[in-house]
Amino acid sequence: MMSYFSDIGNVCWFLEPQLSDAIKRLHHTVGNAVSEDRYVVVGTGSTQLCQAALYALASPGAGVAEADPISVVCAAPHYSSYQEVTDFLRSGLYKWAGDAYDFDKDGPYIEIVTSPNNPDGAIREAVVNRKEGKLIHDLAYYWPQYTPITRPADYDIMLFTFSKSTGHAGSRIGWALVKDKVVARKMIKFIEVSSIGVSKESQLRAAKILGVVIEGCQHSASENFFEYSQCLMAERWEKLRDVVKKSQIFSLPKYPQEWCNFTSKYVESHPAFAWLKCKEDTNCEGLLKAHKVLTRGGERFGVGKEYARISLLSQGEDFNQFLERLSGIKTTEQGIRTT
Amino acid sequence: MMSYFSDIGNVCWFLEPQLSDAIKRLHHTVGNAVSEDRYVVVGTGSTQLCQAALYALASPGAGVAEADPISVVCAAPHYSSYQEVTDFLRSGLYKWAGDAYDFDKDGPYIEIVTSPNNPDGAIREAVVNRKEGKLIHDLAYYWPQYTPITRPADYDIMLFTFSKSTGHAGSRIGWALVKDKVVARKMIKFIEVSSIGVSKESQLRAAKILGVVIEGCQHSASENFFEYSQCLMAERWEKLRDVVKKSQIFSLPKYPQEWCNFTSKYVESHPAFAWLKCKEDTNCEGLLKAHKVLTRGGERFGVGKEYARISLLSQGEDFNQFLERLSGIKTTEQGIRTT
Repeated sequence: MMSYFSDIGNVCWFLEPQLSDAIKRLHHTVGNAVSEDRYVVVGTGSTQLCQAALYALASPGAGVAEADPISVVCAAPHYSSYQEVTDFLRSGLYKWAGDAYDFDKDGPYIEIVTSPNNPDGAIREAVVNRKEGKLIHDLAYYWPQYTPITRPADYDIMLFTFSKSTGHAGSRIGWALVKDKVVARKMIKFIEVSSIGVSKESQLRAAKILGVVIEGCQHSASENFFEYSQCLMAERWEKLRDVVKKSQIFSLPKYPQEWCNFTSKYVESHPAFAWLKCKEDTNCEGLLKAHKVLTRGGERFGVGKEYARISLLSQGEDFNQFLERLSGIKTTEQGIRTT
Repeated sequence: MMSYFSDIGNVCWFLEPQLSDAIKRLHHTVGNAVSEDRYVVVGTGSTQLCQAALYALASPGAGVAEADPISVVCAAPHYSSYQEVTDFLRSGLYKWAGDAYDFDKDGPYIEIVTSPNNPDGAIREAVVNRKEGKLIHDLAYYWPQYTPITRPADYDIMLFTFSKSTGHAGSRIGWALVKDKVVARKMIKFIEVSSIGVSKESQLRAAKILGVVIEGCQHSASENFFEYSQCLMAERWEKLRDVVKKSQIFSLPKYPQEWCNFTSKYVESHPAFAWLKCKEDTNCEGLLKAHKVLTRGGERFGVGKEYARISLLSQGEDFNQFLERLSGIKTTEQGIRTT
C-alpha cells in the first residue's frame, strides 16, 4: 500500500484490482451499465474523471484542431459545476459553451449528458447529435434508489461515483467505464499528471463496502441496500409531493412509471434533488432562504430564478424540518418577489 | 466519514482536524518548518497542491494582468514534472518558462524553489529575486533522512508530502503551509473544483501514522523513524560513493557537512536520488539502461544527457543489485557514447 503503483499490468496502473472487480460485479448485479470489456479508470471522485474525460477528448492527437479550444456543452438545466470545472484554469484545450440546446457552432464539440439529470432528475439523451460530437455520460444517479433501471447503459465514457451510489462522498472515489483504449489511456494520463493516482486507502475501503452491498443484493429486501434506499426515497418523495400539492406556490417535475429490472416492479424516479419551481417571477432560492431553507437557485443551472434545487439526501430529522418549513410558506409572501 | 466536509469551521473545510494537528506537531518535533499561525491545506499529494498554488498565485484577483499567462520558472536541473503539470491543460493563467537562471522577461512570474532539490539534492534559494516574483517552496525532501535540518523553513507557501516524509506514496496525501489567508483560500478553491476535497480514509491513516512517528521521536534512536532512516541513507550513500569512486566514468555531487538540529550532529545530505554525471558526451541514461539500470536522463530535468537521476529508495535487495550493476560498467564501453 505504500507504493504509487497498484497493478502495473493494468492500463490504469493506480487502480486496485479489488476495486476494479467490485465495480464490475456491482454493475453486473444492478444491471445499470455494461462493464464487460470496458476499461475501468478510477478517479478522485467523478469530478476529477469529468476533467480527465475533457482532457482525453480535447488533447493533442484527439483529432481536434489545436488552435481553438473545443466547445463543451450540456443541456440546461445542467449541473452547476460543469462550467466551473471546464473554465477555471482557462484551458486552451476546452471551453464551456453553455446550453446544448442553443449550440450552433460548426465543428467538433463535447456534450456532457447527465442522466438522471442533476438538478431535475430527467432521463436524458444527447441533444446536439452531430457527427463531430463526442459524448461524456455522467451516470452518477443511475442507481435503483433514484430511478428505475430500465437497461444496462452502454456509452463510450460513463462516469459513476461512490458518493452517489452508496453515499460515501468523503472517500473521493469515482470511476469511469471507457470503451476505447486510447481515450482510457489519456484519462489515466490526466490523473497521473494531476494527482499521481488515487488514494489506496479509499480504493480498498470502497472495494470492501461495494462487496458488502453486492452481497446484500443476493438477500431479502431488508438487507438489500438499493431496495431499502428505493423505499426510503419513495417515502420522502411522497411526503414532499403532499406538501407541494397543498402549496399554491411550488410545483415539481413529474416522472413516468417504468419497469425497474433490478427491483422487478414499476416505479417512478425519486431523484436525490427536488427541482422546485415557483410561480413565475418569484426568486425561488430567495423565498426559501427567507424561510431558512438553503438551496441552489436556477440561474446556477443555466435556467431562470423561479427554480431551485434542494437536496433530499439529508438526515431524517433535517428532511422533516425541511418539509415543515416548506409547508409554512404561504402565497401571501410578497417580500422577495422578483428581487 | 461519509460527508464531503471534515471541519466546516476551518478555512480548509475538507481537512481532518486530526491530520492538521499531526502535521503541526510533526513540524514542531522535527523543526523543519514554521507551522504556527500558518494555514494548513491538504491535497491529493503535493502534486495537486503545486497546481493549487499556481492557480492561487495566477488566478483573477491575484494582481496579475489577465491578458497573458504568468511565467513559471525553476532553476535547472529541476523536477521533471513541473513543466508537464504547468502546461498539460494549456492554461491561460500560467505557462512554463523554463530555467530560472535564463529568465529575463519583465513583469510578474512564479518561481518554484525545490530544496533539497529534485534531482540533485542541492539546498536552494530563489534565483530570480525580483519584486514581482511569487515563490512556491517545494520542501518535499526537507526531512532528516535526506538532509541536515539547519533551521525551521519560513516561506509564504511551503509544500510537503506524506510520500517523501514517511514513504506512504499510495495514500496521496500532501500538505501546504501557507502564510496568507487569501492565497490559502484560493488553493482550497482549486482543490474544491478539481476534486471536491481529499480522501478522508487517507487523511485519517496519515494522521495515525504521523502520530506514531512523532511518538517515536521522543524515544531512543532505534525507535526514531528519522534517525533510523538517516543512518540507512548514510549507509547507502557510503556504498554508492565507494562504487562511483572506483569507476572512471561517473561522478556524484558533493554535499557539505552541516549541523542537524534534529539529530544534534554534523551530517551531510543523503538525497533520495543519486544525480549521476557521466564523462562528457556520454548518454548517461542510455549507458545505464544498457546495463539494466532504469533512470531518468538529464534532459528531462532541463540539463544535458550526461546526467541521470536514480532513485535510492528502492528495497534493500534492489539497491544492492543496482550497485552491482553499476560496478560492472567499465570505461571501455563505447557503444552508446554520444548517441
